[in-house]
Amino acid sequence: MKRVGIVVKRGRPGAPEHGAELATWLRARGLTPLAEVEVAEEMGVAEGLSKAALVAGSDLVVVLGGDGTLLSVVRHLGDRTVPILGVNLGGLGFLTSVTWEQMFDVLAATLDGRVEIDRRLMLTARLEGPEELLWSALNDVVITKAALARMIDLETTIDGEPLCTYKADGLIVATPTGSTAYSLSAGGPIVHPSVGVVVLSPICPHTLTNRPMIVSDSSVVRIAVRTADDHEVVLSLDGQESVRLVNGDVLEVRKSKTPVTLVRPPGVSYFAVLRTKLRWGER
Amino acid sequence: MKRVGIVVKRGRPGAPEHGAELATWLRARGLTPLAEVEVAEEMGVAEGLSKAALVAGSDLVVVLGGDGTLLSVVRHLGDRTVPILGVNLGGLGFLTSVTWEQMFDVLAATLDGRVEIDRRLMLTARLEGPEELLWSALNDVVITKAALARMIDLETTIDGEPLCTYKADGLIVATPTGSTAYSLSAGGPIVHPSVGVVVLSPICPHTLTNRPMIVSDSSVVRIAVRTADDHEVVLSLDGQESVRLVNGDVLEVRKSKTPVTLVRPPGVSYFAVLRTKLRWGER
Amino acid sequence: MKRVGIVVKRGRPGAPEHGAELATWLRARGLTPLAEVEVAEEMGVAEGLSKAALVAGSDLVVVLGGDGTLLSVVRHLGDRTVPILGVNLGGLGFLTSVTWEQMFDVLAATLDGRVEIDRRLMLTARLEGPEELLWSALNDVVITKAALARMIDLETTIDGEPLCTYKADGLIVATPTGSTAYSLSAGGPIVHPSVGVVVLSPICPHTLTNRPMIVSDSSVVRIAVRTADDHEVVLSLDGQESVRLVNGDVLEVRKSKTPVTLVRPPGVSYFAVLRTKLRWGER
Amino acid sequence: MKRVGIVVKRGRPGAPEHGAELATWLRARGLTPLAEVEVAEEMGVAEGLSKAALVAGSDLVVVLGGDGTLLSVVRHLGDRTVPILGVNLGGLGFLTSVTWEQMFDVLAATLDGRVEIDRRLMLTARLEGPEELLWSALNDVVITKAALARMIDLETTIDGEPLCTYKADGLIVATPTGSTAYSLSAGGPIVHPSVGVVVLSPICPHTLTNRPMIVSDSSVVRIAVRTADDHEVVLSLDGQESVRLVNGDVLEVRKSKTPVTLVRPPGVSYFAVLRTKLRWGER
Repeated sequence: MKRVGIVVKRGRPGAPEHGAELATWLRARGLTPLAEVEVAEEMGVAEGLSKAALVAGSDLVVVLGGDGTLLSVVRHLGDRTVPILGVNLGGLGFLTSVTWEQMFDVLAATLDGRVEIDRRLMLTARLEGPEELLWSALNDVVITKAALARMIDLETTIDGEPLCTYKADGLIVATPTGSTAYSLSAGGPIVHPSVGVVVLSPICPHTLTNRPMIVSDSSVVRIAVRTADDHEVVLSLDGQESVRLVNGDVLEVRKSKTPVTLVRPPGVSYFAVLRTKLRWGER
Repeated sequence: MKRVGIVVKRGRPGAPEHGAELATWLRARGLTPLAEVEVAEEMGVAEGLSKAALVAGSDLVVVLGGDGTLLSVVRHLGDRTVPILGVNLGGLGFLTSVTWEQMFDVLAATLDGRVEIDRRLMLTARLEGPEELLWSALNDVVITKAALARMIDLETTIDGEPLCTYKADGLIVATPTGSTAYSLSAGGPIVHPSVGVVVLSPICPHTLTNRPMIVSDSSVVRIAVRTADDHEVVLSLDGQESVRLVNGDVLEVRKSKTPVTLVRPPGVSYFAVLRTKLRWGER
Repeated sequence: MKRVGIVVKRGRPGAPEHGAELATWLRARGLTPLAEVEVAEEMGVAEGLSKAALVAGSDLVVVLGGDGTLLSVVRHLGDRTVPILGVNLGGLGFLTSVTWEQMFDVLAATLDGRVEIDRRLMLTARLEGPEELLWSALNDVVITKAALARMIDLETTIDGEPLCTYKADGLIVATPTGSTAYSLSAGGPIVHPSVGVVVLSPICPHTLTNRPMIVSDSSVVRIAVRTADDHEVVLSLDGQESVRLVNGDVLEVRKSKTPVTLVRPPGVSYFAVLRTKLRWGER
Repeated sequence: MKRVGIVVKRGRPGAPEHGAELATWLRARGLTPLAEVEVAEEMGVAEGLSKAALVAGSDLVVVLGGDGTLLSVVRHLGDRTVPILGVNLGGLGFLTSVTWEQMFDVLAATLDGRVEIDRRLMLTARLEGPEELLWSALNDVVITKAALARMIDLETTIDGEPLCTYKADGLIVATPTGSTAYSLSAGGPIVHPSVGVVVLSPICPHTLTNRPMIVSDSSVVRIAVRTADDHEVVLSLDGQESVRLVNGDVLEVRKSKTPVTLVRPPGVSYFAVLRTKLRWGER
């Protein structure tokens, strides 16, 4: 492990200063810190890189921010396996469960090879058509109607077998990691990240008996968009990227070949994070 | 009762023919049928009117279509009290519960004054600002984020008192009539149309303890939109009209002065319609 | 206002001592404190009464405890109108929103007639049969299957019109006050206490399209129990009293003639209590 | 395959006659039909057996009834692997998806070895204590409060790690097979039967942020019952057997060693059964 990419949350006051402090700490241990071009100078890092180049050139990426910042890094992984350490600078996140204070011990342990790695299922979404259009998502692949339309039809098959045609505001295809994000707001269950499944959570389904559905992560989910021609439909990936879809578009969602590898901080329990985030200790 | 407006569902095969048959039936009883300009000729009605003019000039409006067609009529009522008879040409609707076959008896009874009138609460939505912008809705006033944004903040007060800031995909302010429409898909309760309340149903709330809320229809609901400047927010009325909102816009929703008057077909029970539409007889 | 009943939460350490302090405070203002027989001595009150006699003899009842303690008082009101002041000795309650520290000011204001009174809808449940069996409830009238049965059938009518037959674990008939209690756990909406409605929330309905239903509080809800003879069914009132029902029993639920009168502490907003109890400020 | 057990639904008119017809059909193919003692005579089978003995002595069990009848057979499997063919005599069941008419073809295919076998995860529930008390369940292991109590506390751990303390009416631990049974009524997701997970669905949780939870079927779920001493708590297995629990009881739920083997009728799709049962084709 030689080069450690540091990605700080955009626009968060104090974040580059934390990045600079981390860069100094890394250099003192003979490591090379990498930074994004927008904040490299503030962080005292000579050469700034694009996020893609930073991820491509790092042996470890440390995210200083929240879950959104980590999700922005994940899109640049491609098939590479770079461990990511998520550090929250404010509230506890599901993916950023280490505090700034805890970070130095966790980093030391990581450099010594004393930490565990969480392998998290990613999804690949492919738009069928003449061009190969591919996206990946750690949390969710979401198809929604634009605000003006009332409802869209999403003809959905699992491994080629018809499941149903969702008449809804949209459909969330979530990983276990994403089960505590948007899918939860839409009424989906919480899925332990170790489980190899995909969650299909319809958004405001017109058919009241439509319920969140769990299928194996070895399944191929295929969704055909049916909508009046003038109604906008949008595909969004982890709430980070979005693409306009049209009537007749077919999206195929399946497990990515390479999982995301997250540094699991010692002593942090998934359930403890859940209890804190969802305030299960209290009404 | 002299002039009877006939509004047929756009694009529905056979609808103008039904309209023509009804026009003939009305003329045979000494009544003047009115039709929309787009279908007047097909319906054998001499002069076609705009929907607004048709509604303004009718002593009774007969809707041949589904609930959507009836909702399109309602927007032109203003403060007038014109009874509306909803006739479904296909599946049973909540607002169009009379079949074509039953219609003639119901019409005869209506002309004789032998039917009951349902007074249905309407909502008026007013956008605060230098211009007076007003809309009305029989089902619901809905504020939603556009597909690209993840969430909007809706600071909501009831009669001037802070309720909460919804962090959600949107908020549905529904009448009892609208409780079986979009609000139901968002998890809202079913409200008997005789009850004087307004339902606030958040769409995919981030705060899991946010639940549909029922307040008196004498309450004034005020919703301030808080969103990043570049995120689109849309106001929609009965799923029929829509208006773009921006960060800082404030919408006030209150009971309209004049209710909508629907002809209640004799022998049709609200609960029977519910049981049929929601298939309560079966799992 | 001469006699003030003091009801303290059973088994709560320190509660009788608080009661004693309140009794002293009342005597200093020329008022007569009344206490229950079990704690009268501890509270320094000469003569102890049954809860029923205490309620019957008081011009004001102060509850020191939680919502459950207040609900235990309400059952003894009959048709009397005695204002009740709910004081929480621990966590904030929906019905007990005044703290011990605030209580003295509120009491002083109450004695001066400077407080507002909240009139809260109560329900009367009547078991049809040769004997007149009547109960009242401020929160909810609940019919549930015993644990061994899987489901019961509850044939329900509203004002004599069939609503549906719930196939469920049970049915909660809740007041607006009770909407934030058991009904909320069963998926019911939150209803502002000023609204004149009754909520029907099925518990784990087998029919997935069964949803909470709101009807006018002038409606008469009639529920006929259909169950295999050997399955136990239980009626419970505010979670305080319970009665065994059998196959064929018919329960009629309607608005009580007399509402419960609660002292509304100045400056305490219903929505503020909601926000605190349901933690709406946070995820 | 020599001996085929026939289990008919108790009390269903016509069921023994169907059983008799099937017995004749089997004998004509050189097979020995086995019947339960209560209906053996009606079915023309010489010697009647207990259900346990029937299951123990059969190479294949045909269930004529509904899902409940099939669940009653499963409890007698122990660690044996006997294929079961579920035939519905009335409405389609999730486990009994073959009609009487289709049965003969499916049976012929089964005897020829031309059918597929579905392996369905079973759960074993063990009550900790001096005696070894064990039960198994194909649908669900359910802990509920008796009707009189308002709520129980269920301290739950997953693989020894604290999950949370459910404050609820109860907790359903469901298999994928059971996800469409009681768990669905409690708001749980639908889980494809091929997936190796267990669903934890709380019943009417007091903590509104408690949501159905999915964990791996290799997990050990441990539930400690905390309740006031006088409140009854009941453990029930597939809604078929039940056991009284007391405060302090600890139940351990894990995957059974042996799955249930169901004959999968050719051409019957799981999703098609779902669509029919949940009426996804219609609102």
